[in-house]
Amino acid sequence: MTYGYVNSMRTRPGQRDEVVAILLEGVDGLRAAGCHLYAVGVVDDDPDLIRVSEIWESREHHDRSLQLPETKAAIARAMPMLTGEFASQEMTVVGGLGV
Amino acid sequence: MTYGYVNSMRTRPGQRDEVVAILLEGVDGLRAAGCHLYAVGVVDDDPDLIRVSEIWESREHHDRSLQLPETKAAIARAMPMLTGEFASQEMTVVGGLGV
Repeated sequence: MTYGYVNSMRTRPGQRDEVVAILLEGVDGLRAAGCHLYAVGVVDDDPDLIRVSEIWESREHHDRSLQLPETKAAIARAMPMLTGEFASQEMTVVGGLGV
Repeated sequence: MTYGYVNSMRTRPGQRDEVVAILLEGVDGLRAAGCHLYAVGVVDDDPDLIRVSEIWESREHHDRSLQLPETKAAIARAMPMLTGEFASQEMTVVGGLGV
């Protein structure tokens, strides 16, 4: 059973697209780290919000990925553009399509 | 750009797994309806909650799928087992892995 994680983050006004670009830079390394899905999204009526929907081999794979040097570097670059307002939801995926 | 949808629903006590089974029954028809991902999940510390993370070709494909006879029948069967507490989040997927 895989691990699902949905994360919302709020950027400072006008900096959403820059943060999206940082999030997308690291995508190539994610598969090797045990990531099955990493969907970065924006929201029509909230121009400073980013949502990321992720599916990982396991929670441990996800947590470990946060310790990778490239992840830490990306977080450090994005952090000044974020307000600190985060929300996340976890789940254990029990089935479906494409999982 | 695809459409992402994350949906949480609360079941009446003890009925989660029955609702999960209904949600998973219809999976085969989803791809033809324009669904790329349909991940049904449960949560460790909340035994009556179900989360579904979806990615669709477009919002229109998602909305249209709700009108399919098999979807309507599944909703009708699940509804008595739900409390009516729902939460959903939408996004326009701008990139990532597996999207």
